[in-house]
Amino acid sequence: MNEALAGILPVAPTPFHADGAVDEDGMRRVIDCMVDQGVDAICILANYSEQFLLTDEERALLTRISLEHAAGRVPVIVTISHFWTDLVVRRAREAETLGAAMVMMMPPYHGAGLQASPQGVFEHFQAVNDAIGIPVMVQDAPLSGVTLTVDLLARMARELANVSYFKIECPFAADKLAALLEAAGEHIEGPFDGEEAVTLLADLDAGATGTMTSAMFPEKIKPIVTEYRAGNLDAALEQWKRCLPLINHENRQCGLRATKAVFMEGGVIGSDFVRHPLKPMSQRTRDRLLELARDLDVLALRWGA
Amino acid sequence: MNEALAGILPVAPTPFHADGAVDEDGMRRVIDCMVDQGVDAICILANYSEQFLLTDEERALLTRISLEHAAGRVPVIVTISHFWTDLVVRRAREAETLGAAMVMMMPPYHGAGLQASPQGVFEHFQAVNDAIGIPVMVQDAPLSGVTLTVDLLARMARELANVSYFKIECPFAADKLAALLEAAGEHIEGPFDGEEAVTLLADLDAGATGTMTSAMFPEKIKPIVTEYRAGNLDAALEQWKRCLPLINHENRQCGLRATKAVFMEGGVIGSDFVRHPLKPMSQRTRDRLLELARDLDVLALRWGA
Repeated sequence: MNEALAGILPVAPTPFHADGAVDEDGMRRVIDCMVDQGVDAICILANYSEQFLLTDEERALLTRISLEHAAGRVPVIVTISHFWTDLVVRRAREAETLGAAMVMMMPPYHGAGLQASPQGVFEHFQAVNDAIGIPVMVQDAPLSGVTLTVDLLARMARELANVSYFKIECPFAADKLAALLEAAGEHIEGPFDGEEAVTLLADLDAGATGTMTSAMFPEKIKPIVTEYRAGNLDAALEQWKRCLPLINHENRQCGLRATKAVFMEGGVIGSDFVRHPLKPMSQRTRDRLLELARDLDVLALRWGA
Repeated sequence: MNEALAGILPVAPTPFHADGAVDEDGMRRVIDCMVDQGVDAICILANYSEQFLLTDEERALLTRISLEHAAGRVPVIVTISHFWTDLVVRRAREAETLGAAMVMMMPPYHGAGLQASPQGVFEHFQAVNDAIGIPVMVQDAPLSGVTLTVDLLARMARELANVSYFKIECPFAADKLAALLEAAGEHIEGPFDGEEAVTLLADLDAGATGTMTSAMFPEKIKPIVTEYRAGNLDAALEQWKRCLPLINHENRQCGLRATKAVFMEGGVIGSDFVRHPLKPMSQRTRDRLLELARDLDVLALRWGA
């Protein structure tokens, strides 16, 4: 990539058939729908994609299908997180070979307590940095249980040329983004947030240039970023106020089941199945979700019609 | 199995070559050494086996090699933990087909925060229980971050016929073992502990009949269990006092690197490599380990001679 990625870079859900098998054609339709949503990039195999419920083989399959089917219409970011450094390097190389625009990864973590030292985290990212020629996005998410200090993030930004995107999803993300930009802003191509954009306004105030939402309604969230970055702060604020009820319901009540429910309702995918031990939403939660989505006339709800 | 497993059922380390590749012949030598140590069973792919640093393919390979090479000389317990219930079921079936005597699993967990509800945990074990005809050992370890209440464990013991072994490794394991035995003792074939036997004496007092240590020196720890169970409490206590310094150093200073260091020193395996981001021990820690191991004249130190 010659130009820095910015704007909206949502996570694609991983569709399953009702029996739990990966829905390969559904994955292609998800990609098509996201292209129609006007996203700036697509991220696959993230936590919102149920990456923790996939086999290694399924990860490889989904990577191949997604990159082949996106076919350069939109950049694809491949999540490669794993505890073992060499495996992360292998996944990074495979993603680059298949045409990924970027890889995203968390620091090494396993369970509630297994982590690397700060130096081990640095080496983990360094190994990937040295193995590929595309950018790396650091995912700083509470799920890992790893505290990434601003000092460590800034060191990675400064010393590792490819480590140039940072998705900050921890509590008080805006303050961390601001501190990181102050410490190493000239080495950062993309200060991003995530979490379904539930902290987006404050993160834009702090200097974020992009957001990794879900794929549920990026066409509505994208203008918040573009208007803000164009200096139209009132328009950005208005759009944020319109979107927030649905963002809130997704982030606090539904999690990764939200996009699947909306995509199934709109005919993008055939099933909103999530793998056990995840469970379906209650009817109450789902009804509210779809009502809020209809209020906003989200594209995915009419995509399959 | 017709008879309940008891005694010492250590975890086999996963040997790697110095370049990080799985050492297949080393795995066979580990099994041979453990047979010579007189273990009552061998557990593979546990956390002490660096299971969180293996690919799915390597897990399958190590399962096949270990079961083929053990060849019935000693029962083999295969660890099958994963967040996705269907994958755990698949691994359980494969292990049984290949000749495993038992499977061991943790409740579903991912990272610092992703867990199932208590009912989800029950269903996770139930799915495995219903799919196979060999016993299941519940591993109750802090690494999962999941709190398994005595009520839930007792319910699993009562309602799931194959779920009959419980390895309790959480803080105050002895009290939990005692409470579990009181609640559902008649449904439990094996109340065990783990953690390199660092709580063994108290756990035996609480009713444990077996311990899942490492493979570093089970021939010395086993008599603690057998003497205790034979009613020779003084002999058990004496042997425990002899073993505790090495157990302590392993558990608190070395972790899974201990067995590899001793096995390499004794010629069982060619390398004590651990996969990044794990790091080698300091020379200081290693020197003390080998000194304590020599003091006890552990079998593995002379096995390859």
